[in-house]
Amino acid sequence: MVRYSVLDRTFSALSDPTRRHILERLARGPATVSELAQPFEITLPGLLKHVRILEQADLVITEKHGRTRQCRLGTEPLDDAAQWIQTYRHHWEGRLDRLGSYLDKHEGARR
Amino acid sequence: MVRYSVLDRTFSALSDPTRRHILERLARGPATVSELAQPFEITLPGLLKHVRILEQADLVITEKHGRTRQCRLGTEPLDDAAQWIQTYRHHWEGRLDRLGSYLDKHEGARR
Repeated sequence: MVRYSVLDRTFSALSDPTRRHILERLARGPATVSELAQPFEITLPGLLKHVRILEQADLVITEKHGRTRQCRLGTEPLDDAAQWIQTYRHHWEGRLDRLGSYLDKHEGARR
Repeated sequence: MVRYSVLDRTFSALSDPTRRHILERLARGPATVSELAQPFEITLPGLLKHVRILEQADLVITEKHGRTRQCRLGTEPLDDAAQWIQTYRHHWEGRLDRLGSYLDKHEGARR
């Protein structure tokens, strides 16, 4: 069972397009904060704010190497988020399947 | 390509535990607003606020039947959210696979 507060933080972190872009970039490999900032029209402090939110949600792990800060992905929270969506879709698809079987049976009875 | 503003709304709507509980309940079948409120220690206006946010994100569809409001699931935004997570995980898993192949090759060369 996924702890609820973890899902709160994960989904909240994913609700911003800049933060999703940062994760998409890091999925291709680690990057420094300056490298992450490059594609965005955003100040470094502005980007750092997003990185901190991702860090608090364990979606990004940062390490200081001398004067630069290296960022890489933390994937566990995303697995939990995907699992929540999957479980919920299974319930829903299960209902649709049962409805389909009912309609098939009903149709069969009318033939 | 999933429109970004839609993902913003979906992930933001999913970031609250009461709203996720509402969706889990509706995955088992439609319910009135009063039925949805029952398991929660929450006022009806408090619950309605959450339902409105889910409605704006197209995760819940409501219809007025006389004096009651019936709620049911809207599943499309969840499919888009699941798709975003999947795409992102594929990138990441692809990277791990390539790393695995590299290490296998490297190990092979050392034998």
